Amino acid sequence: MRLRNVKNKEEILATSPYFVSDPISYRGQFQKLFPKKQPIYVEIGMGKGKFLIENALRYPEINFIGIEKYDSVLARCLKKIPDSIPNLKILRMDALMIDQIFDHEVSRIYLNFSDPWPKVRHHLRRLTSKVFLEKYDSIFSSDKEIYMRTDNSELFIYSLEQFSQHGYGLYDIQFDLHKNEDSTLITTEYEDKFSQKGMPIYSVVAISSGVQNSK
Amino acid sequence: MRLRNVKNKEEILATSPYFVSDPISYRGQFQKLFPKKQPIYVEIGMGKGKFLIENALRYPEINFIGIEKYDSVLARCLKKIPDSIPNLKILRMDALMIDQIFDHEVSRIYLNFSDPWPKVRHHLRRLTSKVFLEKYDSIFSSDKEIYMRTDNSELFIYSLEQFSQHGYGLYDIQFDLHKNEDSTLITTEYEDKFSQKGMPIYSVVAISSGVQNSK
Repeated sequence: MRLRNVKNKEEILATSPYFVSDPISYRGQFQKLFPKKQPIYVEIGMGKGKFLIENALRYPEINFIGIEKYDSVLARCLKKIPDSIPNLKILRMDALMIDQIFDHEVSRIYLNFSDPWPKVRHHLRRLTSKVFLEKYDSIFSSDKEIYMRTDNSELFIYSLEQFSQHGYGLYDIQFDLHKNEDSTLITTEYEDKFSQKGMPIYSVVAISSGVQNSK
Repeated sequence: MRLRNVKNKEEILATSPYFVSDPISYRGQFQKLFPKKQPIYVEIGMGKGKFLIENALRYPEINFIGIEKYDSVLARCLKKIPDSIPNLKILRMDALMIDQIFDHEVSRIYLNFSDPWPKVRHHLRRLTSKVFLEKYDSIFSSDKEIYMRTDNSELFIYSLEQFSQHGYGLYDIQFDLHKNEDSTLITTEYEDKFSQKGMPIYSVVAISSGVQNSK
């Protein structure tokens, strides 16, 4: 997403009850951040946070963690989170570090409109490349679940190939997620803008059962 | 495909050098039908046979077998095969019988424009359903390779899901196979007609390495 500087971003981060400044110290014990021990779902690159916040409000039985790399984006997200959502935390992290932060404690990953990195020499930077799928292996607690959406058909095709080659089964593949208007669907800001132009949104759920790769 | 009666179809079948009237007697020894022992590729539902015949002519190092259920379709195909293609045979068979005909001797399966069976209660009749994928397990000699093309997006999505859930990795997924005009691409009659109308052809290669499911 476009980066716009945010005034007082350091202050926003420092005073937000949602921001976790030292994620590495919670490695293997992220449940301690939450009042209830319940499944942890992680959104990598949560942008302005609409998808994550709405999910946290609708599903209090899940602990949600948003990950973002840039302070400006983090600050804009933190500013708009309503007070007192107990099941929501936000971390600053480069996704490349994800396997050094989490340790067999995540139940689901959301990848919404990730950077498509169109050039072939950048493909390994895609969040669904072999590089990242191997990292995710060690953060999942048991079954692996990745929920992905994108408007980029090349990234989508690449991801279907990568998921399946890494042992994931593919479920609920959609070539036009918004075709059947579903008012209960939780969307991202980017998705709304894109979908209103009539462009198709692709989506897939990738699941790998068992723990053969998770330890 | 549309069935049209063909005159003298019994005679055409009986006199064709390509038609194998008793496939069950070759179970486990289909190589005996061919002058050279080389990989066997099977097209299930070869229709009028254009794809199969052109492949057999272009790839003499492969033994090709076409499978079709209906005598009329078989007869129309057999009539148009040029004389003396040594690496081509045609069988009459219901695809449901495939695991009783072949026994660990096939290297690749082609599924071109298979019946989409749109009704949910008929989905198990699709040639990429779990029912068929389990049958194919026992006909492959070692690695499993399925090359699929269709114009039906629902069948395509279903097949990607089924392949991946059955342990296949997906490769070379195409949402519009004819987008880049490739004059070397071998097509079916149906495909030519459909593609000329500008409709997209979907394609995928599903591969499962190793023999864990093949014995």
